[in-house]
Amino acid sequence: MPLTKIVNGLPDTIPFTGPEELERRMGRRFRLRLGANESVFGISPLARDAMKRAVDRVWRYGDPGNRELLDALAVHHGIPVERLVLGSGIDDLLGLAVRAFLNPGDTAVASLGAYPTFLYHVAGYGARSEQASYRFVGDAVHPLSNDLDALGDLARRSDARMVYLSNPDNPTGSWHTADDIRSLIGRLPGSCMFVLDEAYAEFAPEDVLPAADFDDSRLIRMRTFSKAHGMAGGRIGYAIGTPETISAFNRIRHHFGINRVAEEGALASLGDREFVRQVVKRVSEGRDDYARAAKSVGLITLPSATNFVSFDIGDGTRADTLCGLLLDLGCFVRKSGTPPLDRCVRVTVGTEADRRLFGDILERATSEMVR
Amino acid sequence: MPLTKIVNGLPDTIPFTGPEELERRMGRRFRLRLGANESVFGISPLARDAMKRAVDRVWRYGDPGNRELLDALAVHHGIPVERLVLGSGIDDLLGLAVRAFLNPGDTAVASLGAYPTFLYHVAGYGARSEQASYRFVGDAVHPLSNDLDALGDLARRSDARMVYLSNPDNPTGSWHTADDIRSLIGRLPGSCMFVLDEAYAEFAPEDVLPAADFDDSRLIRMRTFSKAHGMAGGRIGYAIGTPETISAFNRIRHHFGINRVAEEGALASLGDREFVRQVVKRVSEGRDDYARAAKSVGLITLPSATNFVSFDIGDGTRADTLCGLLLDLGCFVRKSGTPPLDRCVRVTVGTEADRRLFGDILERATSEMVR
Repeated sequence: MPLTKIVNGLPDTIPFTGPEELERRMGRRFRLRLGANESVFGISPLARDAMKRAVDRVWRYGDPGNRELLDALAVHHGIPVERLVLGSGIDDLLGLAVRAFLNPGDTAVASLGAYPTFLYHVAGYGARSEQASYRFVGDAVHPLSNDLDALGDLARRSDARMVYLSNPDNPTGSWHTADDIRSLIGRLPGSCMFVLDEAYAEFAPEDVLPAADFDDSRLIRMRTFSKAHGMAGGRIGYAIGTPETISAFNRIRHHFGINRVAEEGALASLGDREFVRQVVKRVSEGRDDYARAAKSVGLITLPSATNFVSFDIGDGTRADTLCGLLLDLGCFVRKSGTPPLDRCVRVTVGTEADRRLFGDILERATSEMVR
Repeated sequence: MPLTKIVNGLPDTIPFTGPEELERRMGRRFRLRLGANESVFGISPLARDAMKRAVDRVWRYGDPGNRELLDALAVHHGIPVERLVLGSGIDDLLGLAVRAFLNPGDTAVASLGAYPTFLYHVAGYGARSEQASYRFVGDAVHPLSNDLDALGDLARRSDARMVYLSNPDNPTGSWHTADDIRSLIGRLPGSCMFVLDEAYAEFAPEDVLPAADFDDSRLIRMRTFSKAHGMAGGRIGYAIGTPETISAFNRIRHHFGINRVAEEGALASLGDREFVRQVVKRVSEGRDDYARAAKSVGLITLPSATNFVSFDIGDGTRADTLCGLLLDLGCFVRKSGTPPLDRCVRVTVGTEADRRLFGDILERATSEMVR
């Protein structure tokens, strides 16, 4: 087949093997689905009603300009609508960012072990990546976090044209302050774009998110309805950037790519702030439950500003063993194979019932490890 | 902004201005929405029930492997699942095809005035296009149709690496037989992919669609749930190709790009063959109504194997005038500005009530033209 040079050189690997595929390979269903940071607390009742009504209008294409939702987001953030664009989830927007700003052969920088879909797009468009190691520091407040100094240094050294950071971070759950972020942007090469993935923004402490009107031509922020709003299967994310960046996205994006049922659901969910507040509160309680469950089996959890928790198992081999046991016992969780992240197992906050069952499974798994 | 060379060179124009944007500019709503070839007959009751139930599971990501729907499609078409991939509509899949097979500077061939989104992607990936004129032949069975000989000749002359054809065709409604298609493929340069957009497949006469197991390594067929299945706002399309082509798509596609509500709806709709049969029957009746409405005002309609009808107004200037009058009178329709297509106005088949109202509006518009 006469594939392009770039596509011909790509590996067959995909960013994530989904739980459905794991279930097919195992020949049975998971009892707990806590590996994809989905929001087990579901969707706002307003979003549910809006989506069920919207099903009756699904014969119509959505508005390719997405104006109703964009206008609401502009009001929500207090920024001009020209600074906003929708995508079918942050994954889609990451692809557009790479395509708009990275020529083949250009360099992107990210943390080693960071969100694989970003690097999937970097390779997919023929660009290259360099990665800075996560920082592991014994018993600091954040024992395991992105190393902003290392990212900034690597970006300068490699003359990077794009840096990717998730804040709050996936897969560690750690976070940096808005001051740290601004300082990192200040140290980047002049022509280097900064992609700030804020998928977990709603769960973050107050000092983590730069002000909505913080304006730097290199900054592209990404948000989603997949996490706190509970609409992972809906595929609605959005990017905030300068009007010039948004205009570039509009020149290449898939204009009819947004499902209209999800778009109407997102609009309704945006109006239900109390629902999101409740989700954030319940997730916080769930993280505390996980910390107690870890403690009761002699483990610790890392601080998290997200809807998941990293269980620190101490080293990569033991963490691999525990992760395998949890999967065998019917609990879908994930772990990174990259040091120093490989010492952790990542567990999405479940419902109260999920957490009780997870506690039992964790106890059983750790007792099997001791034997 | 340090945009890539390709994106920096792209125009701000987008393939389609949606009816919502036209309404915003006019300051009022359309009375009839017959410009986007949406299926006014809605969705299967089975799809509706499936989607309303699926809303309650929208907190979960869809299966990135899309196996349940792909397996059903494989059975439906009697082909191996390795020959199938989903996309968020044919638009998405056209982008993947261009990205997989066209290097920057490579040439794609299509008909002048054919589906603009294909050319949007060709330009968007830095490739170039050459276009063969549609053929207009007085009072043949198909007075206005793609010119397959011209397409084949142009592909050879320009050493094209991709040819795009819609069959049945949008925007004319005309069609060619499967034999014609096979013959065209046979005449293409050896390294030239053939993208066959079969969005209107369900409306086509029996001899139009190549057999499902017709196998040519250069052929990529595209289908959708947006037309006969009535799910335009759901964004589900699929491509059929060789396992090698499908594997290339899987190396670059957005793996979590499909809305899970729509995916469950598509699965249910695929199982409701009687619904699709009824839609096809009602669309056929609607086309006959339009032919009568045209005749009563001294116009003709072109034969159509789709869910829309081209009204032949005789020349471009008169067609522009009529199209403007229809829009002014609250009827969203579309027309091409490219000769020889510019002599036509394209009108989606509406419900019986829509058609009565359209007949009245057409009568009023044509009477204003005479004055």
